[in-house]
Amino acid sequence: MSMKAKSLALHSKLPGKIQTCSPITINTMEDLSIAYSPYVSEVCLEIKNDPYKVDIYTSKPHTIAVVSDGSAVLGLGNIGPLAALPVMEGKALLFKRFANIDAVPICIDTQNPDEIIQFCKNIAPSFGGINLEDIRSPECVFIEDELKNTLNIPVFHDDQHGTAVVVLAALINACRLTKKPINTLKVSLSGTGAAGSAIAKILQKYGISNIYAYNAQGVVSSANISRFDSVTQSLINDGIIQDNPSSKGNDLASVISGTDVFIGVSVGNIVTTDMIKTMNNDPVIFALANPTPEIMPEDAFNGGARIVATGRSDYPNQVNNVLAFPGIFKGVLTVGARQITDEMKLVSAKALSSIVSDYELTENYIIPSVFNERVVHEISKAVQNEYKK
Amino acid sequence: MSMKAKSLALHSKLPGKIQTCSPITINTMEDLSIAYSPYVSEVCLEIKNDPYKVDIYTSKPHTIAVVSDGSAVLGLGNIGPLAALPVMEGKALLFKRFANIDAVPICIDTQNPDEIIQFCKNIAPSFGGINLEDIRSPECVFIEDELKNTLNIPVFHDDQHGTAVVVLAALINACRLTKKPINTLKVSLSGTGAAGSAIAKILQKYGISNIYAYNAQGVVSSANISRFDSVTQSLINDGIIQDNPSSKGNDLASVISGTDVFIGVSVGNIVTTDMIKTMNNDPVIFALANPTPEIMPEDAFNGGARIVATGRSDYPNQVNNVLAFPGIFKGVLTVGARQITDEMKLVSAKALSSIVSDYELTENYIIPSVFNERVVHEISKAVQNEYKK
Repeated sequence: MSMKAKSLALHSKLPGKIQTCSPITINTMEDLSIAYSPYVSEVCLEIKNDPYKVDIYTSKPHTIAVVSDGSAVLGLGNIGPLAALPVMEGKALLFKRFANIDAVPICIDTQNPDEIIQFCKNIAPSFGGINLEDIRSPECVFIEDELKNTLNIPVFHDDQHGTAVVVLAALINACRLTKKPINTLKVSLSGTGAAGSAIAKILQKYGISNIYAYNAQGVVSSANISRFDSVTQSLINDGIIQDNPSSKGNDLASVISGTDVFIGVSVGNIVTTDMIKTMNNDPVIFALANPTPEIMPEDAFNGGARIVATGRSDYPNQVNNVLAFPGIFKGVLTVGARQITDEMKLVSAKALSSIVSDYELTENYIIPSVFNERVVHEISKAVQNEYKK
Repeated sequence: MSMKAKSLALHSKLPGKIQTCSPITINTMEDLSIAYSPYVSEVCLEIKNDPYKVDIYTSKPHTIAVVSDGSAVLGLGNIGPLAALPVMEGKALLFKRFANIDAVPICIDTQNPDEIIQFCKNIAPSFGGINLEDIRSPECVFIEDELKNTLNIPVFHDDQHGTAVVVLAALINACRLTKKPINTLKVSLSGTGAAGSAIAKILQKYGISNIYAYNAQGVVSSANISRFDSVTQSLINDGIIQDNPSSKGNDLASVISGTDVFIGVSVGNIVTTDMIKTMNNDPVIFALANPTPEIMPEDAFNGGARIVATGRSDYPNQVNNVLAFPGIFKGVLTVGARQITDEMKLVSAKALSSIVSDYELTENYIIPSVFNERVVHEISKAVQNEYKK
């Protein structure tokens, strides 16, 4: 049976991937009257008098809303909220499996950014955090920024920051192998959407000043700034993405040439073996388009790549968001942090990279397994320590 | 330890009353790739191509949103969404306990009816039904009506219809004892809010044409119609509530006098023993204000009451919504009904009343126990049969 068929079979046999359950048994009228009406009113009054007690008396502090409008689902594009539901249920399942965080899949019937923002503000009283998921760019950046500025619970768009954290962790470990100081790296980036823009930002925050980019509109440059969406324009204006030297040319090949690292979060099969050959020594290739990478690992190696990572589970070095979001949310929920800060993302990447010891680190093992139990623990601890600073 | 203290202790010891869980175990990369990315995309595409398949592949068809704005919580009034959360978690727990329906407590940060409506429309793709809860009147009626007219999933405001169904069931059984034909009853009603208005409507639908009412604005009558809120005005205009004959007077006592049944869904201690004495023979008293009834049972019996029901668990004949909503939702979810119709509510009441056999029926047992397993089963079956007509 193919994997696709296995997935359909699994889902059709289930009563859904997510259910609710309770640690309470209700067998008598007394059980009913203290868990519910009338005596639950005492609990309500305690919270009314001191809103922070909601964290003592309810499920709110360990429950996350996984919110999507279905506008940019996996590699499928805008399939709408109903068809996005299996993904959000899966995400909720991963929250539970990897961080013991309760998560509720919520696919919403609007793709208007202002309405999405209003929706998230409205649900905020019931949840300890909001994980935005599979919302298209550039809207996703505006939505997340606005929510972070107004809500007092953590808001995290995983397609942006989850990917960025894992990419930075992988890059830190790639540099441990290539011995190149990370702040001297020249990075070429294909794609400046949700993931690409967040990757550029976190790499810059980590000290990388030479990032060049290409996207569906062409080579990203200040000369052609009006061609790009608001998120890409910000990357240019904020000095996060540099102009590709005009002497190099004006295509993807020219952006890649002379760089140490290529990071693709775009579409499959756009990078060639020859392009890899034009990179600096010890090229590091993160070809993360799914399911077809920007270049297949074997083709990258033929071009001289030293280290290749993909988004796929059937090759070494899988960049998988599940390495990041469970630990990050576990960390903020544990300490009751109201924000996931840039510093928390940086320490999460460092914690994730450090799980691979010097003895384990090889070209085929720069990223730990998602089933390594230290992953969630170390990231959560790092986030908590950062918060307590 | 007092019951209030027990409730606080129970809630503070818990990690919340509601958690998420999953029937899936994730132990390998294959598990991960078929339950989530990349192969879940096959499931997404199936739903994109045929939206009805969401009922096969996801948790949607058996998951309910319990939505409240916290504006009218238990007897506590407008305590807001955060303080309402323990009640909604309790409600979700009851859905699971009594009908094995997954339910998610969602307290929202708006009390604007249009925004509540928009919110519910937005979450609709993720849920098989919406249970509105503890939303003040008259807004609750407008909100529910609008949602019923626009959404293709069942929407049910339990404070209206749950109470109404149980009251009708109790009244049917009271008439089995008093031998009065139910359509000849004269009914006095105190309170025309969420519960009172729905009770008046269901009694009228069941054939009772003589209903007189009193509320915080006084005796309900067409002469003073401008005094009342929109819901009460509709009850007058639709001929559901009759004018109290002016010869009788203009206070609660005059409304009650000469009626066969008094139903209170208002405030405690407003009915006296002497008022009961002015009722027709075999008075039936449903004094449902919580925690203090309109008249205490002992005082009602002193006035000649034959049957007394309250909302309390420490007296016989508790009118408890948990007798109705689990079975009603189980019924509609089982058959995939897109509405909870008036006819479904009527057959639910009849099914509930019929659970009490002739041998069991006494003045102190007109309503079955919430722990009687036949309750959910019989109501669900009745709703399904009504749907299939």
